[in-house]
Formats: sequence, structure tokens, C-alpha cells
Amino acid sequence: MKVTVSRKAHFNAAHRLYRKDWSDEQNNAIFGKCNNPNYHGHNYELIASVTGEIDQETGYVIDVKILKDIIKTEIEDAFDHKNLNLDVEEFKSLNPTAENIVIIIYNKLKAKLESNLELEVTLYETPRNFVTYSGK
Amino acid sequence: MKVTVSRKAHFNAAHRLYRKDWSDEQNNAIFGKCNNPNYHGHNYELIASVTGEIDQETGYVIDVKILKDIIKTEIEDAFDHKNLNLDVEEFKSLNPTAENIVIIIYNKLKAKLESNLELEVTLYETPRNFVTYSGK
Amino acid sequence: MKVTVSRKAHFNAAHRLYRKDWSDEQNNAIFGKCNNPNYHGHNYELIASVTGEIDQETGYVIDVKILKDIIKTEIEDAFDHKNLNLDVEEFKSLNPTAENIVIIIYNKLKAKLESNLELEVTLYETPRNFVTYSGK
Amino acid sequence: MKVTVSRKAHFNAAHRLYRKDWSDEQNNAIFGKCNNPNYHGHNYELIASVTGEIDQETGYVIDVKILKDIIKTEIEDAFDHKNLNLDVEEFKSLNPTAENIVIIIYNKLKAKLESNLELEVTLYETPRNFVTYSGK
Amino acid sequence: MKVTVSRKAHFNAAHRLYRKDWSDEQNNAIFGKCNNPNYHGHNYELIASVTGEIDQETGYVIDVKILKDIIKTEIEDAFDHKNLNLDVEEFKSLNPTAENIVIIIYNKLKAKLESNLELEVTLYETPRNFVTYSGK
Amino acid sequence: MKVTVSRKAHFNAAHRLYRKDWSDEQNNAIFGKCNNPNYHGHNYELIASVTGEIDQETGYVIDVKILKDIIKTEIEDAFDHKNLNLDVEEFKSLNPTAENIVIIIYNKLKAKLESNLELEVTLYETPRNFVTYSGK
Repeated sequence: MKVTVSRKAHFNAAHRLYRKDWSDEQNNAIFGKCNNPNYHGHNYELIASVTGEIDQETGYVIDVKILKDIIKTEIEDAFDHKNLNLDVEEFKSLNPTAENIVIIIYNKLKAKLESNLELEVTLYETPRNFVTYSGK
Repeated sequence: MKVTVSRKAHFNAAHRLYRKDWSDEQNNAIFGKCNNPNYHGHNYELIASVTGEIDQETGYVIDVKILKDIIKTEIEDAFDHKNLNLDVEEFKSLNPTAENIVIIIYNKLKAKLESNLELEVTLYETPRNFVTYSGK
Repeated sequence: MKVTVSRKAHFNAAHRLYRKDWSDEQNNAIFGKCNNPNYHGHNYELIASVTGEIDQETGYVIDVKILKDIIKTEIEDAFDHKNLNLDVEEFKSLNPTAENIVIIIYNKLKAKLESNLELEVTLYETPRNFVTYSGK
Repeated sequence: MKVTVSRKAHFNAAHRLYRKDWSDEQNNAIFGKCNNPNYHGHNYELIASVTGEIDQETGYVIDVKILKDIIKTEIEDAFDHKNLNLDVEEFKSLNPTAENIVIIIYNKLKAKLESNLELEVTLYETPRNFVTYSGK
Repeated sequence: MKVTVSRKAHFNAAHRLYRKDWSDEQNNAIFGKCNNPNYHGHNYELIASVTGEIDQETGYVIDVKILKDIIKTEIEDAFDHKNLNLDVEEFKSLNPTAENIVIIIYNKLKAKLESNLELEVTLYETPRNFVTYSGK
Repeated sequence: MKVTVSRKAHFNAAHRLYRKDWSDEQNNAIFGKCNNPNYHGHNYELIASVTGEIDQETGYVIDVKILKDIIKTEIEDAFDHKNLNLDVEEFKSLNPTAENIVIIIYNKLKAKLESNLELEVTLYETPRNFVTYSGK
């Protein structure tokens, strides 16, 4: 019996969409106002969903406090109140679109979970725009 | 690496559940107060979720502004502040249940997306009642 | 010690903004797409907030079940799944703007509350548009 | 054409995480403050999602009023304003973790649905912690 | 220039509405299913709103981190994962209605704020039922 | 009969809390991680609440489309996808705390409203932190 356990978290960050190897014109044409060189920002909301068998002893798939701590250490401490482009190693050469951010988050969390657990991550950039990745 | 990009939108509309080929008694028995001949209405909330490969150039699956514009042109302009039964061609001979509305929305949006993108649509009729369709 | 006790409720209704004594041109100029002659509709969300002294015996200002029942009888049974213009007596000669609806709701609820209780009503027409009235 | 119809519901309950066959030390080590012998509680939010073919006559997969009534009879009447450990038969010998509760809810609802309908249940223990089960 | 600064917080607790000096019949008649002797529970959501002059040096009325810490120490540490009737001193002889809880919370927070700051507290017992107190 | 009409809006922006006339040590001591020199950001949610008499002709206090347009021109166009410290004139010499931002927003909106209308502005910096100002 596989159950999915989900935990919400959040971080506030600045970012800018652009590619260093593109001209200003090309960056503006593709990324529009998201390309503001002075940055803009978001309250990112994150849902990490872990699927696995229930441990018959504890009744847990994963102790949600452990999941909460992994999210805090791997994501919140690394991304919260940061400039994603300037302060976060992974985005120094990777454009921080929501799609790219959710993959980075997935990879960081997946590495800390037991290998028999499946993971899906949903990232809200705004209440109306969000992305989902499950490693497929 | 496939990521799902979701966009929320909304429209306000009147509707009535009934079949022209049924008697009033039959319509009342099946559709109850949703069969009010003077109509009632909803703030419909819509989530369009598009799944595809990330473009390695842009870091986008689909530019969410493009998705937003497709939803506006295809759905909001057609359904917002309308009477679904009287003003919307698709429901002149189709009962506008949430199930039927979500399929019409799916078909209209799918036709405007590149064919390699998958689509799932969720439609909230009220905050407590919603339906989901992904073309399967 | 005065405490405010609030209860949320909701109803789904169709309506149309217009005045019978105005020309079509005037109605369209002022009310725009809200003037669709075939109606549109909303999930109205309602908050009734009752302020008064705490009863030292019960620890209640008002039993929220009593408040819930008054809202059901006075508002939900009268407005839910209705066409406000056609089915609701109060709006047969009163334009059902959010402002006018919230005053009608206030008056109907106030009449059923003990006279020493103050009332404020907030009515959401959409998640982004709402009105508040407290009898002043 | 398969559509998923979802209905939200809720119940308020007390519970405590512990195993009778474990020592106090072991219960505290695993369940922490959730093991308070005097109980704590939650506003549980429930989403029951039913997937099936649309009935071509009615335009319904399932009449959401029927789904609402099944949830009320099977879950709300049984769990609301109860102590899950003491008042609910299923948890007298089963630790009421969110994972175990969602499986019990799934089994109770599934037994009342027509066998050709698929079911998924999501249970929010708090706005930030939730679990999902679909019988797999 | 007075600005109000608000901070949301939450705690999960069990409780029971009853008076020791009333008979079981009287408790049941007034408090209904909230009188379950085995307790039920809620995810209480709390908003503490502090009003005062902006400090011209910092641009703060109150550093929201300080407000967050006061709420944590005074309310969350005292009430979270507790049985209000059994574990919280203030409710050993006071019926834990939402009205009485919000007054206790107000008094505890007010005592820790500088005296020139006004306070209003809103407490959600469920998403549909909430109370507000501002010391008047 | 005075009614309050409220409209929600939002903008995404980067900012940094600091004073140019303070040392780095002093800025860090007071503003902590909000003082990141590379900025961080938020999805700011805004509620503008306008109070006045109902126009007996239209049934409106203010046409919410007019209010929406004023918010768009004055606030969204000026603040959205901007760096508040660098791109917005008002904050070049004013620390963009939530308190200071809400006062600037109030002043900008108030100047565009008819003088007999009262205004209150609530600004959410995050879903858990918000401020309110009404010109008093």
C-alpha cells in the first residue's frame, strides 16, 4: 500500500531571467519584463510529495518532521532571502526559470531521501503560475 | 526531462443543467435546483497544465505568457460574463455540467498547443466541487 | 469584553446589472459586460460578523450554530441557485450590484439577531472583488 | 472519455499517535509531541476524487450530491467532533497517522461507490501536511 | 502615521466545551457535539495585528521577527499539540470557547508588547468560524 | 449608507531593507537577512478598500473596473517586476519596509480617488506577514 506524503514550504527570492550568451535584444525579446537587470522577486511556495510503502511499525511513509528538516536544510537555507542568479551556485550558469528551479529542487531533495521513495515537486512562482517535476 | 507548467485563470458565467429532450419532471428529478429555468451561476476557476520537454535554450516548456494568452482568447473571451446555455455555441445542444465544460475547454486549448505538449485541465465549479480531464 | 464572532457561508447565483428605466445604451455604457441580458453568475462568499458581550455562563457571544442557521434560512435558502433579478423579491426593482446585495443581506440578518448585537457583512462577488457593510 | 470529479469535505477530530505495545520512551522517541497522552487535534480537510466515464444521458460521472452524501454518511458522521483513538472503531488498534487515516477513508468510500469508478483520497492534516492514497 | 502590522501563526490542539458545574444534560443541551467527553480538535489559525507609529529610523512599527517570536513563546509553545482543557493552565477553570481563547491570547500577547502598541487578535477555529478581540 | 468596496491586486518585486546612512554592521543588526545586498523578493498582494455612499443611480460606491484601472496604472505598472530600491523613485531614499510601501501605495491611490471617498490599503508581503494603513 503506497501512500504519498506531501509537505508545503516556502522561500522568498529575487531572480532575473536571462542568458549571458545572448544579446540584450534577444533576452528582452524572449524574457520581457522578467529580464529586468535589477531583478524582481517572488514568494516561492513549494510542495514536496514523497511516495512509498507505509512502515507497518510506525504507520509512516516518512516522518513529516524529517521531510520538513530536509526541505529546510536543502532548500530554505540555500534559497530563502537570496538572489538566485547571484547567491545560489546552481543558477550561476543556469537560467532560473521556474522549470529549471523545480528540477534543481527535485535533485537536491531526491539525493537526501531513501532510494525506494519516489518524489514529485511542485513549485508556485505566483499563486497563478506553477510547475511540477517528478524525475521523468 | 518533462516538466508540467500550470496556469490558473477564471471566468464568471450563468448556466442551467437540463436536457431539452427530457420532461420538466425528469430534469427536476436528476438536476434538482441546478435545473432552475432562470439560471444560476458560478465563478469558475480553471487550471491548465501543460507537460513537455524543457527547451534547453530558454529553460521554458512553454512561455507562461503564451499559455495565459491562449486561455484568454479561447476560454475567457468566450465564456466570461456569459450564459453558457444561451451565449456559448458548444452548449446549445450539450448540457453544461462541469464534466462537459472541462472537456470543451480541454479540446479548445489542445487545438492551440503544439502537438507534442500534453494537457490536463482542472475546472472548479465551486471551491468544493471540481473536475479534471486529460484527454484519456 | 466585546468579541466579534464571524461565520462564512456561500451561495451560487445568476444576476445582471441593469436598470429598467434606462435605455440599453445607458445600461451598456455603465454596466458593460455585467449587463449581459442572458445573465452571468458568481459563487458569492459571505462573512457575517456579530459583535457583542460574552455570555459569562456559556462563553459564547452567539452560538455559531445559531448564526449558521440564521444565514441558511435568511440567505442561502433565499439566494442559492437563484437568479437574483428574477427569483428574489428584493431585487425585482433594485439593481443587484454587490453594494446593494450586501445591504439586503445585512438587513435580513440584522432583523433576526438580538438587538444588542452589532453586525458587519462582507460579500465576495469574486475572490478579487468584495464589499462590506455594517449599517452605518 | 474519463473525467475525475472531486469533492472537498472536512471534519474536526482529536487524536494521539502511539502504539499500545510500545513503551512510553519508544512512543515519545518516534512520535514526539504528537504522542501527548491528553491528545491534540486537527481540522482535517478531505478531497475525494472519483474517476469514470461520463454518462451520456446526464453528463455526470457521478452526481456530486451523491458523492457529498456518501462522504457525509461514511466519514463526517463517523469522524467529526470525535476522538479518533477512543471513539472510532477502526483506530482502536490502528495508530491514527495521516497515512492510516487516509487508507481507512479510502476503504470506506470505495465500498459505497460503483465498482467501475476509481477513487483517490487526499487528506490534509494541516494546511502544510497532507497525504494521498488511490488503492495502489 | 499609524500602520497595523499583522502576523499569522497556528497551533493544533484538542478541546471540549463544557462547564464542570453543569450537569451532563445541560452541557449537552448547550454545547452539543462540542461537548464530546473524549475531546475533538482543531488547527487554530491566529492573526496578531499590532498598530502603532512607524519608527522613522527603521521604517518598522514592530520588527515582525520580534512579533513572530512573541507569538511562538507565548502561544505556540503553550498551546500547540496540547489538550486545552487538561494541559493549559488558563482553561482549567475556563470553558475554551473560541471567544475565551482569543481573550486569553490577547492578554498574553498584550503583556509582552510595548504599552503604546495597540493589539487585535483574530482566531480561526475552522476556516468558516473565527473570532476577533481588541481589548475593548 | 456607506459601503466599502475592496479590490485585490498583486505585483512581484525585488527589494532590500537598508539605510544608506548606516554602517553595514548596523544594517545587518537591524534588518538581518532582509539586508542581503543582492536583494530578495516577494509576490506582494494588495487590497485597496474604498468607502463611500452608494450612488442611488448606479448602485455603485465606485465602479470596481475604475478602481482596478487606478491600481494598475498607479501601482502595478510602477512596481511590478521591478527592484523597489533601484527602479522606483519613491524608494530611492526611503527604506522599502512593508510599512513604508503601504503608505506610498495609499498616497498614490488616494490622490486619484474622489476626495469624498475614504481609503484603506492592506499589503501582504508574504501570506503570513501583512500591513494596513488608512491615512490616520
